[in-house]
Amino acid sequence: VPTEAPRETLDRIHEAMVGAMRALQGEICGRLEQLDGAARFSLDAWERPGGGGGVSRVLQEGAVLEKAGVNVSNVHGALSPDLARRLGGEGEDFAATGLSIVVHPRNPFAPTAHANVRFLRRGRTGWFGGGSDLTPHYLFEEDCRHFHGVLREVCERHGQSYARHKKAADDYFYLRHRGEHRGVGGIFFDDLGGDLEDGVRFVEDVARAFLGAYLPVVERRKDLPYGEAERRWQEIRRGRYVEFNLVYDRGTLFGLETSGRIESILMSLPPAVRWPYDHRPVPGSREEALLAVLRAPRGWA
Amino acid sequence: VPTEAPRETLDRIHEAMVGAMRALQGEICGRLEQLDGAARFSLDAWERPGGGGGVSRVLQEGAVLEKAGVNVSNVHGALSPDLARRLGGEGEDFAATGLSIVVHPRNPFAPTAHANVRFLRRGRTGWFGGGSDLTPHYLFEEDCRHFHGVLREVCERHGQSYARHKKAADDYFYLRHRGEHRGVGGIFFDDLGGDLEDGVRFVEDVARAFLGAYLPVVERRKDLPYGEAERRWQEIRRGRYVEFNLVYDRGTLFGLETSGRIESILMSLPPAVRWPYDHRPVPGSREEALLAVLRAPRGWA
Repeated sequence: VPTEAPRETLDRIHEAMVGAMRALQGEICGRLEQLDGAARFSLDAWERPGGGGGVSRVLQEGAVLEKAGVNVSNVHGALSPDLARRLGGEGEDFAATGLSIVVHPRNPFAPTAHANVRFLRRGRTGWFGGGSDLTPHYLFEEDCRHFHGVLREVCERHGQSYARHKKAADDYFYLRHRGEHRGVGGIFFDDLGGDLEDGVRFVEDVARAFLGAYLPVVERRKDLPYGEAERRWQEIRRGRYVEFNLVYDRGTLFGLETSGRIESILMSLPPAVRWPYDHRPVPGSREEALLAVLRAPRGWA
Repeated sequence: VPTEAPRETLDRIHEAMVGAMRALQGEICGRLEQLDGAARFSLDAWERPGGGGGVSRVLQEGAVLEKAGVNVSNVHGALSPDLARRLGGEGEDFAATGLSIVVHPRNPFAPTAHANVRFLRRGRTGWFGGGSDLTPHYLFEEDCRHFHGVLREVCERHGQSYARHKKAADDYFYLRHRGEHRGVGGIFFDDLGGDLEDGVRFVEDVARAFLGAYLPVVERRKDLPYGEAERRWQEIRRGRYVEFNLVYDRGTLFGLETSGRIESILMSLPPAVRWPYDHRPVPGSREEALLAVLRAPRGWA
C-alpha cells in the first residue's frame, strides 16, 4: 500500500534512494569484477527525453561471468494516460528510481541470478518494489538454502515477512505457458509503503544482500568441470529466462512501452541461448531433477 | 471483412482447408528435405483438450537447415470470454485451421523465412488470414526482389492487392521498441472475407508459393563461405526474431494464452541466439546496410 506524504518528504526519499543506488552500483560492480578476475564493467550514461536518465554498467565475456549488468535509473515526468491507468496511486507526475542486477555466469553449474529494487513516487504517494531470485540450471540444494537463508535474514532484520515475499516470488517468477517457475525463487514485493525511511534502508539492504546471497554460490560452482551436454542444457534453460522476461516481466514490458533505453532494458537477456524443438531431459537425470523443483516450488529457509 | 454463410458452407470450407493444408504440409516438408539433403522431418500429432489438434513436423540440425518447422493445426470449441472479445465476428463456437512454416538456415547469408495461412470460423462467419515474410541477416537485393516478385504474382493471379498486403506486412512485422522491421517483409492479411471458395484457392497458393519464393534464395546462398563474425551477426539478428515473436506476434501470444501445444507454438524460435549488450555494426559495413533497410522499408516488386 502506497504511503501518503508531503512532496518534500517524497523528494527527499527519492534523492536518498538515488544516492544509495549509485553507491551500491559501484560496490556491486567492484565485487563482481573481483569475482570474475578478468573482465571489467563498461559504463554508459543515458538520458531520457521525457526527464531523467540512468547509468548502465555491463561486463561481458569474462572468465567467470559471461554477461552481467548493474543498472541504475532515475526517471521522472508526466505519465501517459495508458500508464496512469495501470500504475497504482493518483496524480499525473511520477518519479521512479531503482537498481537492477542480472548475472549470467559461464559455468552451467553456477546459477543465473537477479535482483532489483525501486522507489516510485506518484503525486503525493510513494512506494517501494523489488525482489531477488535465483535461477539454477542444475540443482544444488545447499545453494538454494544459502540464497534463501540470506534473504530471510534481511527480511527479518527489517521486520518484513520473508514468508509473504517468498510466496510472492513463487507466484511472480512463473511461466504459465510452460507450467514452470523461472528458478527456485527468492523474494518479491511491489507495493511496499509504510515508513519510507525504513523502506529505503530495507531495499538498500536487499540489494546489498545480493552479494552475500549469490557470490559464495558462484565461487563454489565456477570451476566445476562441465561438457557440451551441460552447456547445451544451460542454453536451453536460458531460453526460458528470455521467455519470462519478454512475455511476463512487468519491468521489461514497462520499459518497452515507455520507450526507455532499449539496451539497458534488455541487458537482462542471456548472452547465448538455444531453442531446440521439444527437448526433454532423460528420465532420472540431473536435468529432470531440476524440472521437478521448477514445477513444484519448495521451502528453502 | 468476415463473410456470412450457412454453417454447412463454412464447415465445407473448413474441411477443404484441412485437406489442402495436410497435402501442402507433406509437399513442403518433402521439398525442404530435398533442399537439405541430410536431415528428415519428425512428426508429432497432438490433441487439444478443448477440441481438435494438429500435426507438427520439425527438421533440426540439417546440413543446410538448422531448424525448420511445418505445422498444421485444426482446432475448434467454445471461445473463452476474453478471446471472444478480441476476436472479430460473433458467436460462441469457433474453428480455426491453418498451416505455418518457419525456416532457419544454417548459413548466415541464407535468410530466415516464414509463411502462415489460416481459416477461421466463428458462429456464422468465416475469414482467412495469412502472410509470408523474409528475414535476411545480410542484404541481397536480388533475393528480396525475387521473394516479393513471387508474392506479387500470387496476389495478382487471385485479384488480391499486393500493394495493400505488402504495406500490411511492413506495418505488422515491426519491432516498435527497436524502431526496426523484422526483415524485408512480404505480404500480410488478417481479415480476408469475400468468396470463400476463392479464399481457399488464394491461401493455398500463398502457402505453396513459399517454395518458389524462398527455396531458390536458399539454394543461391547456402554454400557461400562465412566466418565467426557472420555467424555471430546472424545469432544477434535471430534475437530480434525472438523479440518479435514473444512480444508482438499475435499468433504466438494467441497460442500461449489459449494453452495450445507449447512446443508447436514456439517451434518458430531460432535454434541458437545471442544477446550481446549494445552491439553496433561498424559504419559502412554490410551489417549496417541491412539495418538501414530494416529501418526504412523499400518497394521490391
